[in-house]
Amino acid sequence: MTTYQSMVLVNRPKNGEIGDYLFETKEQEIPSPAEGQLLIKQTHMSLDPAMLGWMSEDRGSYIPPVELGEVMRSSGVGEVVESNHPDFVVGDKVLGMTGWQEYLVSDGQGFNKLQPGVSAEIALCVFGLPGLTATTGLYQFGKPKEGETLIVTGAAGSVGTIVGQLAKADGLRVIGVVGSDEKADWIVNELGFDGAINYKSEDLAGQLTALTPNRIDVFFENTGGPIQQLIVDRMNAHGRIVVCGMIADYQSATPSPGPNWIPLIKKRITIQGFAMPDHWGEIPQILAKLTPYVQQGKIKYRAHTVKGLNNAVKGLNMLFSGENRGKMVVEL
Amino acid sequence: MTTYQSMVLVNRPKNGEIGDYLFETKEQEIPSPAEGQLLIKQTHMSLDPAMLGWMSEDRGSYIPPVELGEVMRSSGVGEVVESNHPDFVVGDKVLGMTGWQEYLVSDGQGFNKLQPGVSAEIALCVFGLPGLTATTGLYQFGKPKEGETLIVTGAAGSVGTIVGQLAKADGLRVIGVVGSDEKADWIVNELGFDGAINYKSEDLAGQLTALTPNRIDVFFENTGGPIQQLIVDRMNAHGRIVVCGMIADYQSATPSPGPNWIPLIKKRITIQGFAMPDHWGEIPQILAKLTPYVQQGKIKYRAHTVKGLNNAVKGLNMLFSGENRGKMVVEL
Repeated sequence: MTTYQSMVLVNRPKNGEIGDYLFETKEQEIPSPAEGQLLIKQTHMSLDPAMLGWMSEDRGSYIPPVELGEVMRSSGVGEVVESNHPDFVVGDKVLGMTGWQEYLVSDGQGFNKLQPGVSAEIALCVFGLPGLTATTGLYQFGKPKEGETLIVTGAAGSVGTIVGQLAKADGLRVIGVVGSDEKADWIVNELGFDGAINYKSEDLAGQLTALTPNRIDVFFENTGGPIQQLIVDRMNAHGRIVVCGMIADYQSATPSPGPNWIPLIKKRITIQGFAMPDHWGEIPQILAKLTPYVQQGKIKYRAHTVKGLNNAVKGLNMLFSGENRGKMVVEL
Repeated sequence: MTTYQSMVLVNRPKNGEIGDYLFETKEQEIPSPAEGQLLIKQTHMSLDPAMLGWMSEDRGSYIPPVELGEVMRSSGVGEVVESNHPDFVVGDKVLGMTGWQEYLVSDGQGFNKLQPGVSAEIALCVFGLPGLTATTGLYQFGKPKEGETLIVTGAAGSVGTIVGQLAKADGLRVIGVVGSDEKADWIVNELGFDGAINYKSEDLAGQLTALTPNRIDVFFENTGGPIQQLIVDRMNAHGRIVVCGMIADYQSATPSPGPNWIPLIKKRITIQGFAMPDHWGEIPQILAKLTPYVQQGKIKYRAHTVKGLNNAVKGLNMLFSGENRGKMVVEL
């Protein structure tokens, strides 16, 4: 085979809808790397909620949108199949911004080799964007202390699972908010969370009160939705709220309102919105913080894999509907 | 005269309503200070929006409520008329938590002498709660930088006037939000703000855009209200929001919703709620920061005075209706 497929963004999402109308599949000849370049065959591509924002025409965000006609942006893991680059040899496995394509030529910038024993799945599920995001958000902004209570929304998601397990390992009481009973079971029985709330169930306020006898010190927000107000009302003085994602609202033309700010004064609460691209320069320190937890077996994960580039759109939709069971990965 | 009046809280506010039904006036004999005590005759009492919170039965706030049967809480300036305290002599003017009463006996704790040349009015309007609050909120949390744009709501109020003038002196572009054209004129023409918006006027979004060509870096929130969302939408990346007051919502049984949190992520915004009681220990440093601005004539102020304890309720209501012209003070 001398050709490969890539998916190019040709439309902006209408009403937040993700579908095949957004992309055009291109078939091209596999390029040869020039001097100083390498050819990467992507094997595992990450699907992330942020992608909806990257496709949209919002130039005020933390990262410019993907331009129409460009290959859709993504991170992924690939294998070096040809190298004219001094730092890479054929067979190296690398993690970086690969895009929605089977092959790519790169000058190596932004690509890091996987350490021996690190699989593509753990690279994408833990050491990739989810783990970097969870670690940065939790420690830099959440400032967790042993004995405190943390609540994380999207708790069965790629970032939420790691946030909860890190906090649990640090001796916090950890409650997760999820969208199904299956996910609730999983985070409690498999990941060791102290409790879970299915936001589709009844009496959210009552469940929250029962599960947080000492109220809430850290609120790690990945989703938005109606439980947000209840959590803010349940915070302790000097609580920290880390706003990492609002997936419940990304597809909405009129995002739902947030909590009134009076409790922020009464409780002297800090809210910090953040996005990983501000923190690329800190990756060595972030990995130094995260790696020991992984080595000690404290971070479990699961990947939800779909096969082939032509299933990427379907996989992305599963993220927004909450049908996924674990971090969404496209196996190529 | 050997008796004095005090006002004791006897009811909690119903539906946020402030009225005579809340208080009972007591007439008592003026006490004598014991060894180590002083007798203070209050001359100027401060009225502040926070008082509504202090009267309410909300034990989750930053300061416990005033108990029923207790003298209502306030700060104020008084003159020492009798002293058995080594650090105070008759004639000293002092600033501290005086309460709604004409006389009080104190052990001196929490009372500071006014520096020579400092009037009771400037003490209450600038060096008292408003100035401490403005300085702490602006510098500790707003982190203003020369050339940035700051917007402050309640801009003609006791805190807002000082926030705006400090920021202006530091070389920021300063826009104030007020509730009348008279106040708009005053903050622009007398205090030197770069612009003002009357929130009761038309096309707030258009006015905001026109007045903030470089968007907004610091948002100092004293009021709440519908312009809050417009300001958040107009923030720059890494903007700082200081939540100091929400006077528009204090009297509401169902506070209005706040902004959706998506912009907090896109712009990596920090929101910090704060209240002065957390910062009592920092007062020397806060005054060291504030005093040079005052000495250089950069902080103008105006007091709105009502006379007599029996007008305190009326004065407090003027604060909430926005009828006041300057910091509300009761002259005793």
